[in-house]
Amino acid sequence: MPTSKHFGDRLAQHVRQKNSSICVGLDPRWNSLPEALKQGVDVNDMRAVATATEVFCRAVIDAVASVTPIVKPQAAFFEQLGPAGMQALAGVIQHARQAGVLVLLDGKRGDIGSTAEGYADAYLGENSVWQCDALTVNPYLGDDTLVPFVERAVQRDAGIFVLVKTSNPGSGFLQDLLVGAQTVFQRMADLVESHAGNSQGDSGYGCVGAVVGATYPQQLAELRGRMPRAWILIPGFGAQGGSAADVLPGFDSSGTGAIVNSSRGIIFAYQQQQYSNLDWQEAVARAAADMAAQLALG
Amino acid sequence: MPTSKHFGDRLAQHVRQKNSSICVGLDPRWNSLPEALKQGVDVNDMRAVATATEVFCRAVIDAVASVTPIVKPQAAFFEQLGPAGMQALAGVIQHARQAGVLVLLDGKRGDIGSTAEGYADAYLGENSVWQCDALTVNPYLGDDTLVPFVERAVQRDAGIFVLVKTSNPGSGFLQDLLVGAQTVFQRMADLVESHAGNSQGDSGYGCVGAVVGATYPQQLAELRGRMPRAWILIPGFGAQGGSAADVLPGFDSSGTGAIVNSSRGIIFAYQQQQYSNLDWQEAVARAAADMAAQLALG
Repeated sequence: MPTSKHFGDRLAQHVRQKNSSICVGLDPRWNSLPEALKQGVDVNDMRAVATATEVFCRAVIDAVASVTPIVKPQAAFFEQLGPAGMQALAGVIQHARQAGVLVLLDGKRGDIGSTAEGYADAYLGENSVWQCDALTVNPYLGDDTLVPFVERAVQRDAGIFVLVKTSNPGSGFLQDLLVGAQTVFQRMADLVESHAGNSQGDSGYGCVGAVVGATYPQQLAELRGRMPRAWILIPGFGAQGGSAADVLPGFDSSGTGAIVNSSRGIIFAYQQQQYSNLDWQEAVARAAADMAAQLALG
Repeated sequence: MPTSKHFGDRLAQHVRQKNSSICVGLDPRWNSLPEALKQGVDVNDMRAVATATEVFCRAVIDAVASVTPIVKPQAAFFEQLGPAGMQALAGVIQHARQAGVLVLLDGKRGDIGSTAEGYADAYLGENSVWQCDALTVNPYLGDDTLVPFVERAVQRDAGIFVLVKTSNPGSGFLQDLLVGAQTVFQRMADLVESHAGNSQGDSGYGCVGAVVGATYPQQLAELRGRMPRAWILIPGFGAQGGSAADVLPGFDSSGTGAIVNSSRGIIFAYQQQQYSNLDWQEAVARAAADMAAQLALG
């Protein structure tokens, strides 16, 4: 579908073509899966659980693909199923790519140089083993540890999203600490912006982005201004408390530059009163379309 | 072998029984594997590469088991081989456990509450899918995100090692920032010590430990004093530049409380001049014994 290969540009194209800034988080918690898929599965048989999980994620992708530029599988929920879960993850990634949806693996990886290279080699780009379009990266180890991720992303037309300000209640414990006149998250934002600027594409955005939670709208507004060339992934919408008004400050003046993630709110939409009269897959499709429309109204 | 189940106590027992404080890092970079194991393997066949990688790691474990209380598989190098690599990782973990060696998975995982639970459920304890004795954890997301790991570790007689001060050149970018009168790593150390104290076993050490690089001996000395009840995992020995003198300050007055990791220096010892007259597995065994002796002399 896209003609450009640069990650920032591809994401911009997908957002434009689908007229949607939603990111659907694939967090396939077993207990929340539709009963129809769990029926007859022995929960001690990890292969069977992993297979049902993959079937669920593929069906979610099919249901949301028309309004979803990018999906975000959460690595933890696949790792939790052991090697069979990782096989399922590979199948889910492949299915999303075939459905014309970008894949951002939420692994929050981070390690020292040579090991960071290992992670970047593993996940980034269509010639890698896992073939992800992008990966979330944790910067605690230091600026030097981001370099292998950035280099691989540039070389392979892939992207990374660096944790800057996360959506959890305790994110301030470290991220809000004041160092001189700046917070830790502001320093991280400046580092991200520098990498984004050095990898800028035609869309104006680079292939290095930032994670900034919807639960901190004030910081989100400030960070949008501080990182004009970085895509922002905004988690924390819906189940975690962020509203459409809360995420608005994450977008640029032309209404782009951010993708807003919802996981439970979409993939388990059939548990919600308002969608309870629908088949589970229809509920998922409707919830994704509703969220996309909600954001478009902004 | 051990009678106690508490992770801190089990580690203490293993260290005492083997009279060794080494941790062997399993970083199976394909290019460095012995030629004999790579022969005839098609590098584009991930299943074959993963199988050879597993064979290598199992042989390393057999070679070092008598002098090694704990091994540390580096997740990145298994993830790099795709689903087949994760299958190999499962085999390596199982083999180490059968050989009477504790397993610390170096995954540097970290995420918000409910996802952190997923990682902790996945990796910690002998009833988990991966059955690791311990896991390295990244604290960037905040104090609240450590709680699920700590709780699972306590419940399941497993351990976690929280990144405090890492061994890479750029670790100071964030970890050394001065917040009031304290650095970021000192704050992290205080948090670790608090969790370690709350989970103290008979050995005096808790099930929550810290990662402190050998490449910063001054900080290591200070952090030993600051975290008297936390096991310290010291990476950065050998190939990264840390010497036996550098790691000495990481031990308590009775010569315990720390494990010192070496990866390349041991598992690829056959590439070193001094071991070049030995069969590869003998070289690995000799290097591990030499390192254990070097640390015991302290």
